[in-house]
Amino acid sequence: MAADRITPRTLKGFRDFTPEAMLPRERLVDTAKAVYRSYGFSPIDTPALEYAEILLGKGGDESDRQLYRFDDPGGRDVAMRFDLTVPLARFVAQHIGTLGTPFKRYQVGPVWRGENTQRGRYREFLQCDFDTIGNTTMLADIETALVIHDLFTALGFERFTIRCNNRKVLTGLLERLELTQDSAPVLRAIDKLPKIGVDGVSAELHRTVGTTAAQAAEILEFAGLAGTNGEILEHLETLVGGSASGGQGLEELNGLVEGVAAAAIAADRVRVDPSIARGLDYYTGAVFETFLDDLPDIGSCCSGGRYDDLASLYTGQQLPGVGASLGVDRLLAAMDELDMLGERSAPAPILVTVFDDDVALEALAASADLRRGGLGAELYPSARKLGAQLKYANRRGHRLAVIIGPDEVAAGTAQLKNLQTGRSVEVPRVDLAAACRSELTTDD
Amino acid sequence: MAADRITPRTLKGFRDFTPEAMLPRERLVDTAKAVYRSYGFSPIDTPALEYAEILLGKGGDESDRQLYRFDDPGGRDVAMRFDLTVPLARFVAQHIGTLGTPFKRYQVGPVWRGENTQRGRYREFLQCDFDTIGNTTMLADIETALVIHDLFTALGFERFTIRCNNRKVLTGLLERLELTQDSAPVLRAIDKLPKIGVDGVSAELHRTVGTTAAQAAEILEFAGLAGTNGEILEHLETLVGGSASGGQGLEELNGLVEGVAAAAIAADRVRVDPSIARGLDYYTGAVFETFLDDLPDIGSCCSGGRYDDLASLYTGQQLPGVGASLGVDRLLAAMDELDMLGERSAPAPILVTVFDDDVALEALAASADLRRGGLGAELYPSARKLGAQLKYANRRGHRLAVIIGPDEVAAGTAQLKNLQTGRSVEVPRVDLAAACRSELTTDD
Repeated sequence: MAADRITPRTLKGFRDFTPEAMLPRERLVDTAKAVYRSYGFSPIDTPALEYAEILLGKGGDESDRQLYRFDDPGGRDVAMRFDLTVPLARFVAQHIGTLGTPFKRYQVGPVWRGENTQRGRYREFLQCDFDTIGNTTMLADIETALVIHDLFTALGFERFTIRCNNRKVLTGLLERLELTQDSAPVLRAIDKLPKIGVDGVSAELHRTVGTTAAQAAEILEFAGLAGTNGEILEHLETLVGGSASGGQGLEELNGLVEGVAAAAIAADRVRVDPSIARGLDYYTGAVFETFLDDLPDIGSCCSGGRYDDLASLYTGQQLPGVGASLGVDRLLAAMDELDMLGERSAPAPILVTVFDDDVALEALAASADLRRGGLGAELYPSARKLGAQLKYANRRGHRLAVIIGPDEVAAGTAQLKNLQTGRSVEVPRVDLAAACRSELTTDD
Repeated sequence: MAADRITPRTLKGFRDFTPEAMLPRERLVDTAKAVYRSYGFSPIDTPALEYAEILLGKGGDESDRQLYRFDDPGGRDVAMRFDLTVPLARFVAQHIGTLGTPFKRYQVGPVWRGENTQRGRYREFLQCDFDTIGNTTMLADIETALVIHDLFTALGFERFTIRCNNRKVLTGLLERLELTQDSAPVLRAIDKLPKIGVDGVSAELHRTVGTTAAQAAEILEFAGLAGTNGEILEHLETLVGGSASGGQGLEELNGLVEGVAAAAIAADRVRVDPSIARGLDYYTGAVFETFLDDLPDIGSCCSGGRYDDLASLYTGQQLPGVGASLGVDRLLAAMDELDMLGERSAPAPILVTVFDDDVALEALAASADLRRGGLGAELYPSARKLGAQLKYANRRGHRLAVIIGPDEVAAGTAQLKNLQTGRSVEVPRVDLAAACRSELTTDD
């Protein structure tokens, strides 16, 4: 028998989630969904598998190489989705006629990429996106920042910054410097500023684009702008205000700052940052990244922006939109590091113990009563030694234990033990739910 | 451009979920999770992809044929999970040493089977399972029935029946009739009773097993038992009480009926039904199926039972357990048919309209105020004609619309329109949240 046994193991880059890891992830996703819904975003879902032609070529060569692609049992060329954006594009191309616009959706689900796991990447991870499709107004841009704000606040973060920029401002700069053809390498160089510094970026710009010293200096001045939003916007006016694109981008950045203020968000939560360049190649207007002030090095935990054209590969209809994607794994790691995940908590706060087989159904009835009273109550499933049952309760983080032995049955009572304080009280069985509720709402 | 366009389409047997389909599914899953948690079940997650050897041969030949199996980019032989039970077996074999027992888990996630879609089956569907691993007592069996009861009640069902049986009772019958070797075809024949009737089953038993008329009559008497739980249990006692297995099974069935009564569940909710044979081949003790009284033909919407040995293919440790699996698609179809999904409802009940561009930020600020007051408020993302915005609100099922034009801005007020009654009131801006809350809690 043992010789035939299969080693239980997961694939490299894939993870099991034990309850300890899964409870915080479920809470985070539930919080995100609640915030998305409070803004009127509706859930959608799309299949894990798509025709390969739907996914190929949408995320560049690297993305194609990382695709889990195969022939299905029916001989179709299929692949597992590598993000939720390409499926969204396919989805809206197919359904927007019946759904109408504006179309506000969120989607939470796993995606798969055959990444090099040595870079600490997972091959299966959860995405949690929201987007407003089918309009081009500033209001949806502003709302994107507000959703991110509400979400991080709801998760318990007090120190975070939403950094925003606008693709058109950068286009304005490149126009003025006559570097429009070189936008991709310039963006890549700017993106490295925090890592390789001013000299490094300058050298890279010279090497890859052949910039003059004056051009490089101006790009670096642009990317290095600091100060209040007002100061940066004023400075940007002098740098790019002269170009049509730059002027339009500045108007949008001003509108964003003004809109966020109208929603009474703390002034330093949303910061204009011209060095935000990542992803600008895909986006066409506003762009957002979100950093935790206490853990800036982990990078952006929520990124997004506005795009002009979501689905032209699948439909003739022009579908602009704006949205962002939450970095679930990164946020959970950060919350763990910042000690924000709280103590281990059992899904039901009360453990009803089973004293012996003779009174087991009394315990079962008590647990049913507690649940009918709206309280989470787990019944220990056997009459093991009481000490072992209480040890189980402590290990799992139950807050209360209920004990009903033959004496309590005779007296019509129950012992209620607060596992945090160690204090026990005997209460009438009819008052058990009320007593538990009172113990659970008392701050220790 | 159009020539290069890719047709947006999903694979056969795979589905997109629009908000209209997804909102009820999310509500159903959230309800199930809340009930599972109230009993102390914790969430886990496992990868969509496993080594093929983990999944192969676990669900029979048909399951192997339906597997989405392929070589991953690293050349590994991998496959997509076809249920959540085999991954659970692998998971507990790997982690039970650190998790300890009893281990109560739930898991919700998609599974994939290359099914023949002509039978109305999907190739991707959601499973929603709960199990208690590592104990052999009746309490966990009873609790399985209670979870199912609470879940269907929480979903709004008032007429449903949990039918239960015990594999050992059937073993007792087969022992007495000396048909132990033929258990599989006998079970299959019993399972067809509702479809092909007494004569059909009798003929099938004769054809496949070669039963005598007396044997067939006794099997049919067994499977056809009706009456109260007490009457059926008494009758079973005369039929199988003499055999060791039968006696043990009857004791367990009696315990289940007694336990469910102790939890004060309506007596007719849990019914002993000796004809429940499906799945008995896999299960070793209690077995459950759940039928909707108003739609009996759709079959069981939640099935499960007790098994002796979850993971012997992966570990030497004996891991018994009991649990059940919710038929999400079937339940949603039933709720739709029974008109239980309610009217289409927008995720946020209030639509804040945008009167014109000049007062757009006033609308944005009002929507932020409402959300700060704990109310879901969607901001229409542009200053489209008011009629079009209200049409959007009606189509999506918003209950209230807020209108703030230049007059209202000047007066410091807002118009609040109840979209169900058509009634409008003008309220001071500072009272808007309170007025909305009052309108939303008023029953129309």
